[in-house]
Amino acid sequence: MKAMVLAGCPNAVLVDVSHEVPRFDVSAGAFMLFAGTRHFAGGSVHLVVVDPGVGTSRRRLAIRAGGRYYVGPDNGLFTIVIDEVGLQDAVELAPRPEGSSTFEGRDVFAPAAAALAAGVPIESLGPPTDPPKMIEESTPRVLWTDGFGNLVTNLKPPARPMRVHNHYVTATATTYAEARPNEPFVYVGSMGYLEIGVREARADRLLGARAGMLIELL
Amino acid sequence: MKAMVLAGCPNAVLVDVSHEVPRFDVSAGAFMLFAGTRHFAGGSVHLVVVDPGVGTSRRRLAIRAGGRYYVGPDNGLFTIVIDEVGLQDAVELAPRPEGSSTFEGRDVFAPAAAALAAGVPIESLGPPTDPPKMIEESTPRVLWTDGFGNLVTNLKPPARPMRVHNHYVTATATTYAEARPNEPFVYVGSMGYLEIGVREARADRLLGARAGMLIELL
Amino acid sequence: MKAMVLAGCPNAVLVDVSHEVPRFDVSAGAFMLFAGTRHFAGGSVHLVVVDPGVGTSRRRLAIRAGGRYYVGPDNGLFTIVIDEVGLQDAVELAPRPEGSSTFEGRDVFAPAAAALAAGVPIESLGPPTDPPKMIEESTPRVLWTDGFGNLVTNLKPPARPMRVHNHYVTATATTYAEARPNEPFVYVGSMGYLEIGVREARADRLLGARAGMLIELL
Repeated sequence: MKAMVLAGCPNAVLVDVSHEVPRFDVSAGAFMLFAGTRHFAGGSVHLVVVDPGVGTSRRRLAIRAGGRYYVGPDNGLFTIVIDEVGLQDAVELAPRPEGSSTFEGRDVFAPAAAALAAGVPIESLGPPTDPPKMIEESTPRVLWTDGFGNLVTNLKPPARPMRVHNHYVTATATTYAEARPNEPFVYVGSMGYLEIGVREARADRLLGARAGMLIELL
Repeated sequence: MKAMVLAGCPNAVLVDVSHEVPRFDVSAGAFMLFAGTRHFAGGSVHLVVVDPGVGTSRRRLAIRAGGRYYVGPDNGLFTIVIDEVGLQDAVELAPRPEGSSTFEGRDVFAPAAAALAAGVPIESLGPPTDPPKMIEESTPRVLWTDGFGNLVTNLKPPARPMRVHNHYVTATATTYAEARPNEPFVYVGSMGYLEIGVREARADRLLGARAGMLIELL
Repeated sequence: MKAMVLAGCPNAVLVDVSHEVPRFDVSAGAFMLFAGTRHFAGGSVHLVVVDPGVGTSRRRLAIRAGGRYYVGPDNGLFTIVIDEVGLQDAVELAPRPEGSSTFEGRDVFAPAAAALAAGVPIESLGPPTDPPKMIEESTPRVLWTDGFGNLVTNLKPPARPMRVHNHYVTATATTYAEARPNEPFVYVGSMGYLEIGVREARADRLLGARAGMLIELL
């Protein structure tokens, strides 16, 4: 995919935002697509493939939202970006008959991302199309575990008590330094969502919790 | 190594093609060196170190093949690139006496790659030399397991039934969506070789198979 | 963090030097900050966050040492860089009240690094300040295990016999090829420190050793 991007836009600066999204987890992918890209400058191009249905007939999309571009399959991945910053444009990309049928990331999405990065107007990439599929995600849950064992939830501030995996997490703090050792606490994480952490320890291990687990608000 | 490349070519765009090649596995390295670089533009420079014999007397090479440059040790790594696209030039790099004896990647190969990226002609890097060592790899086998658990083989299309680790894999498909759940199938992977996958599951776990295992064609 | 760097310096070339430093291990971080950056050209900017005390009152620093710039928390991370190449400048960065309190890497350090990369003089980033905190690290120990299972120590050349985890490592070699199979040996690693390795095997497994273990010199 990077070769295809550089072939189409040799001066592109490539950033791997995340390879931590659990396989096939579109909700977590939608979250990361927003949280992990919102600090990039206007005009930046974000390519995403989290795709249980590779090769199926869902649309292939390029959209503009919040002044940034997003390219990927129409399976709900754009939901949170659009909820948060609004949709400006959506065009449908053509499948590439000569490309591999198993890797649209390389054969369809990467060339489209390269074209956008090189300054090609989005409306040149395909016909305008209906807004992307939106997924409903109203149930509080753990979206994933970060590298420190913190549990990232799909909940917005303010920080508040919750229960996960039969553990009550009632402490809140604004910094790790404020928290007490060995006591899990809720805080507003760097991506703008509530997280559960433990100072100098792993919340996932202490609570036995992992991505996908439901959360009960107290 | 990246510091050395940027010191020699400050505008280089760096791409980590793969860190997944099993340690010391020259056959898998040769495969990735072809499969992982074939979409890069002409003039791109590919640096590879998969090297059981660090510090031994094998040559240090820079070659041109298919319009791209490849730099690394002469232990068979260039085999598939040369088989697929043909050899254009080969020069022998000098060992650098002042460099560390344990890290030729940094002290010999990275500076050579930087020079090529900066536009230095390959013939300036060392004297012309005999073609690289070629390895014979005729036995069908699993080259490695990708991040999704798919088993990448050293076999070329067309997709056909095979046996691996006492499991018969008789289904073939052109896309994941075509495949049946829980049934392993053979398909042409994005790198142009046959792979064994399972829809929304891990073929390596379902079959108990891993890199290095032999394959019997049915 | 990368988004913030690119927002402030769109032409920055980003290199991930290491994500292998054990969590909260400032000594290992200090080592990597020197060993992993010393081949970069003058003027390069190195951003580091290994920070058990996120949100506490330690200073936030940008320093110049050996012609390179380093940005991070004042918790001892700069010790080895300063020991090895000397301190030229140190300025104190302001906390950013509007930023997230949990992620100074993104809200304080990344913008400062971007400014330096874009050519802003270091004295514009904050007032001159006292030299960074230095940590004393005189006890020989294993700093970490690299991807090949080699044990990287905090000892400088020459290579000499040592004992780790009740194993005597008495052989030394200048290259892997010189070493005997299955016999651990001491050598000068590519970062300029002594390492313990085993030819085509993992020293960490053979010796049952890991980062943090003490070393006795023989």
